[in-house]
Amino acid sequence: MRIKFPLMAIGLEIVLIVLFGLFVEYETDPSIFQQLNNTKPTTMDKFLELYPLFQDVHIMIFVGFGFLMTFLKNYGFSGVGINLFIAALGLQWGTIIQGILHSNGKKIQIGIRSMINADFSTATVLISFGAVLGKISPIQMLIMTIMEITAFAGNEYLVGEIFLASDVGASMTIHVFGAYFGLAVAGVLYRSGLRKRHDNEESEYYSDLFAMIGTLFLWTFWPSFNSAIAEKGDRQYRAIINTYLSLAACVITAYAFSGFVEPRGRLDMVHIQNATLAGGVAVGSCADMEIKPYGAMIIGSLAGIVSVLGFKFLTPFFTAKLRIHDTCGVHNLHGLPGVIGGLASIVAIALGASGTSSMTIQAAALGSSIGTAITGGLITGLILKLPIWGQPSDQKCYNDSVYWKVPKSKQHDSHFHEQDSHNQLEPEP
Amino acid sequence: MRIKFPLMAIGLEIVLIVLFGLFVEYETDPSIFQQLNNTKPTTMDKFLELYPLFQDVHIMIFVGFGFLMTFLKNYGFSGVGINLFIAALGLQWGTIIQGILHSNGKKIQIGIRSMINADFSTATVLISFGAVLGKISPIQMLIMTIMEITAFAGNEYLVGEIFLASDVGASMTIHVFGAYFGLAVAGVLYRSGLRKRHDNEESEYYSDLFAMIGTLFLWTFWPSFNSAIAEKGDRQYRAIINTYLSLAACVITAYAFSGFVEPRGRLDMVHIQNATLAGGVAVGSCADMEIKPYGAMIIGSLAGIVSVLGFKFLTPFFTAKLRIHDTCGVHNLHGLPGVIGGLASIVAIALGASGTSSMTIQAAALGSSIGTAITGGLITGLILKLPIWGQPSDQKCYNDSVYWKVPKSKQHDSHFHEQDSHNQLEPEP
Amino acid sequence: MRIKFPLMAIGLEIVLIVLFGLFVEYETDPSIFQQLNNTKPTTMDKFLELYPLFQDVHIMIFVGFGFLMTFLKNYGFSGVGINLFIAALGLQWGTIIQGILHSNGKKIQIGIRSMINADFSTATVLISFGAVLGKISPIQMLIMTIMEITAFAGNEYLVGEIFLASDVGASMTIHVFGAYFGLAVAGVLYRSGLRKRHDNEESEYYSDLFAMIGTLFLWTFWPSFNSAIAEKGDRQYRAIINTYLSLAACVITAYAFSGFVEPRGRLDMVHIQNATLAGGVAVGSCADMEIKPYGAMIIGSLAGIVSVLGFKFLTPFFTAKLRIHDTCGVHNLHGLPGVIGGLASIVAIALGASGTSSMTIQAAALGSSIGTAITGGLITGLILKLPIWGQPSDQKCYNDSVYWKVPKSKQHDSHFHEQDSHNQLEPEP
Repeated sequence: MRIKFPLMAIGLEIVLIVLFGLFVEYETDPSIFQQLNNTKPTTMDKFLELYPLFQDVHIMIFVGFGFLMTFLKNYGFSGVGINLFIAALGLQWGTIIQGILHSNGKKIQIGIRSMINADFSTATVLISFGAVLGKISPIQMLIMTIMEITAFAGNEYLVGEIFLASDVGASMTIHVFGAYFGLAVAGVLYRSGLRKRHDNEESEYYSDLFAMIGTLFLWTFWPSFNSAIAEKGDRQYRAIINTYLSLAACVITAYAFSGFVEPRGRLDMVHIQNATLAGGVAVGSCADMEIKPYGAMIIGSLAGIVSVLGFKFLTPFFTAKLRIHDTCGVHNLHGLPGVIGGLASIVAIALGASGTSSMTIQAAALGSSIGTAITGGLITGLILKLPIWGQPSDQKCYNDSVYWKVPKSKQHDSHFHEQDSHNQLEPEP
Repeated sequence: MRIKFPLMAIGLEIVLIVLFGLFVEYETDPSIFQQLNNTKPTTMDKFLELYPLFQDVHIMIFVGFGFLMTFLKNYGFSGVGINLFIAALGLQWGTIIQGILHSNGKKIQIGIRSMINADFSTATVLISFGAVLGKISPIQMLIMTIMEITAFAGNEYLVGEIFLASDVGASMTIHVFGAYFGLAVAGVLYRSGLRKRHDNEESEYYSDLFAMIGTLFLWTFWPSFNSAIAEKGDRQYRAIINTYLSLAACVITAYAFSGFVEPRGRLDMVHIQNATLAGGVAVGSCADMEIKPYGAMIIGSLAGIVSVLGFKFLTPFFTAKLRIHDTCGVHNLHGLPGVIGGLASIVAIALGASGTSSMTIQAAALGSSIGTAITGGLITGLILKLPIWGQPSDQKCYNDSVYWKVPKSKQHDSHFHEQDSHNQLEPEP
Repeated sequence: MRIKFPLMAIGLEIVLIVLFGLFVEYETDPSIFQQLNNTKPTTMDKFLELYPLFQDVHIMIFVGFGFLMTFLKNYGFSGVGINLFIAALGLQWGTIIQGILHSNGKKIQIGIRSMINADFSTATVLISFGAVLGKISPIQMLIMTIMEITAFAGNEYLVGEIFLASDVGASMTIHVFGAYFGLAVAGVLYRSGLRKRHDNEESEYYSDLFAMIGTLFLWTFWPSFNSAIAEKGDRQYRAIINTYLSLAACVITAYAFSGFVEPRGRLDMVHIQNATLAGGVAVGSCADMEIKPYGAMIIGSLAGIVSVLGFKFLTPFFTAKLRIHDTCGVHNLHGLPGVIGGLASIVAIALGASGTSSMTIQAAALGSSIGTAITGGLITGLILKLPIWGQPSDQKCYNDSVYWKVPKSKQHDSHFHEQDSHNQLEPEP
């Protein structure tokens, strides 16, 4: 850590600056320039028109995902801090790698749409980050960021440009992809010590409230996520309305099922923080289709139920039987609801809701997303397992003091104290 | 709780899906379609034009109100969590009930304006929630949500469509209505045990900071709340400017009077969290009128003063003498400032600031809002008092562990510990 | 405090209302009115078009700066609370003082652009607030707000209207100005007791997480800050893209250098909270120029490095040798990166990136900003040192309980307890 992480980060930033210098320029729109004379204002208006949606997505990535991952009592600095690092790195790399694929050999143009797509590309890594939260080091996350965004961009190009599948809110290309990629990495990195619940693998009262900041910004701005790159007009309009309704319905079923599955009907913060968002994931693939308002609500309701059941029954099963330890339960928030989203788009097309894709194509897109994610995740996991990166030992799991200077008051906390002595922390000045 | 709350929530969601299936469709604008050929883009542009204002309101409802109610030291999960549940349920029910009233027998159209109005309808319940915070159960809140939004929609239809009163920022139809509805419910549910201040009826240092998240998002986005459904152009423009100035002036007087009324001039977080927002409430009814910038500042200044004085002198009086216990002091943030708002609109019309309403109509609108709220609140309170819902006992008040699985560290907190033993909490796995 | 602060606040608000009554009116655009007939909609559209950018800036001022200053363990109420007071006061005063300078003797017009500029004017005071955080009283802050905004408006008029310098994101007129003004005040108010690190001059685990709320909203919305008053079209477009890229690059170098300079490569939350934002400051002056995407990334990378090094080496040097104690390290976040911003704009012009200003003019603007700030800060510091305002003693530094009613649980905290006995706190009712 002492030298490797800073050096790799600096090296990467230099490479990125060189790549931007060689290949990236500000967006212009030559087709419009030729048609009209006063077209520049038109281009600009489109920029400002999408800018509020971009900013909503931007907040989701940095504030939403960041605070959602502060729920662990001794890992909040890493949750929100590594999230910031990954996302800032990922959006630069995403601009390059998506740009290369979409630029047809010309220079890469950076504009409002590419900025939205770059933010999207970081979302996949942030989802996978949830599966390995507290178990891998910043340097491993850095490597995973580069690997995953590359794989994501390839799959997204295949699904969107070759298959021409419908996936406006990216249920498949982002959520399914990010979840199964993360699970594959977590599977490769599994250690038997993770089976027994770690002392630090818990929330505190206030860490749960910090996580709710993340949940609520994600929840509120999700309609922007699902509509930001939708076709202008009716489709974008529907993407917003459908996502709004799906999320609202999802909250009701998530609360209800959280009460059902918990002893004495008590609600579980883990479900509220996560399962209430499943409706946004699940409606993503067909958000811009004519699925009717009640159709969106049915999708959201199912997603809320499946997500809570996943947290209650599937996550313990994954840890104990499949030897896959999923810290945040991303399978329940992104994986399963994303699969529901892919299936919902197939059903929607079967019922005649849209004419731009076919059932076979949607199935192929879902399959491609799962397949590429698992393959990419396995390869990445093997690379991360190389001894050169160092491996956090079990006792250092979920512990900010391994990577951060923590305030003295926190060091006196019992769990920190114990581990700090193991780590032979230098005395504070 | 074990079964009733989940079953009722699921049942309601099924009913809502059926109602949406029967009566709701995506908005189209036939009048424009007939006039022009390429009008669809125009409609869509309007959608995206109002979308940022909708998102500001959406954040106010879910983040603003949610975190504002996390100030109690042992009731933060419920504050932000039940807020999310109520608002998600309320916006679905609000879409239906407002839609029925405004659709003239045709299908209900859901679009950007109906989404803003649905969010508004939930605000009334969230205001009333503040009056009963910590004293009623989630199942009672669920019932109150349905009852109150129904009453709200009726009064709003009367005031807006029949009276044609001016109430652009809804000082009367939302703030006055929500406050007096909540106070009426609180009055019916009063128990003598509430007179003595409950051990849990206090904030902690960090719970106060969480509440400031709510305050600041409400404060910053309030100009959007007061202008979102304003007539396009000058009026919307003025609604934004007047609210911006009223809030700024209100902050100054709220701080000053907080210093005046507290021993040794110390500022009280309760005033800062709440009274700084009174300027947004009070300018609501006349925000779009030509009240001049300094007029807006006078309204805001008065609201800040009245609100602080209300917290200091009126709330204790209400508890002790009127047997109405108002947990968050919604009377001081929404009730009194809302009445000021109604009166300000009358004065503004008297001074010739607007031509769309009359003093009599404004007075009738204020009267109707107070009357409907108190009537509706009394009826709702009586229904909530029925023994079938169960009643939280005094000792369970303001206590998250009654409804939530709380982290172990919080259970060891002295106040929780004591109550947990009463509740015979099952040991954690 | 008991009487002086409230009386001054009320007095000022009355003066402001009178000034607004005499001099301020809603914006109209007579030039457009004469040219066209249906121009009103055009004006209004511009209002709504810029409104989302205004709201982003508004959130930065109230949520961003506010929470960024909650990092001290016992001074969070003051951090976010005095921030709100200053900003609400400052935007009113800024409207007047900027309006007088720009209105050419006519009435001051308040509209979307003046609201953005008024918010900007408060940013200077909030930056300076960081330098003196915890060491001066609310009444001193009130005086500093009035003094600094007056000096700021004068310098901004000189730089922007007379020099016609390029400073779209206000690296020089806001960030350099605010930092050096604050440092000058801090220098005048220096007391030898500040040399030894105060017990309260530390963060706690959760106070650091609250500060990250501020950091992330500032980081995310900074592209809006740098582009809100840019010329419409290409220039505004570039201001957004350049700021987005500069910030992303800055995060990478800030993390890397935080690892370099800390023992065992641990990351320091102070760097993450602050230095990650330096890229937004440094790209401010030339954000709208044709500096190329990689140019923006180079500027951001350098700013991140300089900022971390400043925190590590320069701030201790300032305290020990220059007798300037800079609580939040605003020199490292705003001062140095702002100077880099001014220099970057000179380099950019030398390389032909823009034709609207010259190297000499930019140098003059940077000089004027530093000179006016230091002069204004010294004068303000001397005024604040007058005994009539009272001076917080060293032992009362960074201590909310001096100005706020703090919750009982916090009073039992060891550091508070000790000081409370010194302060002879009245027993709570």
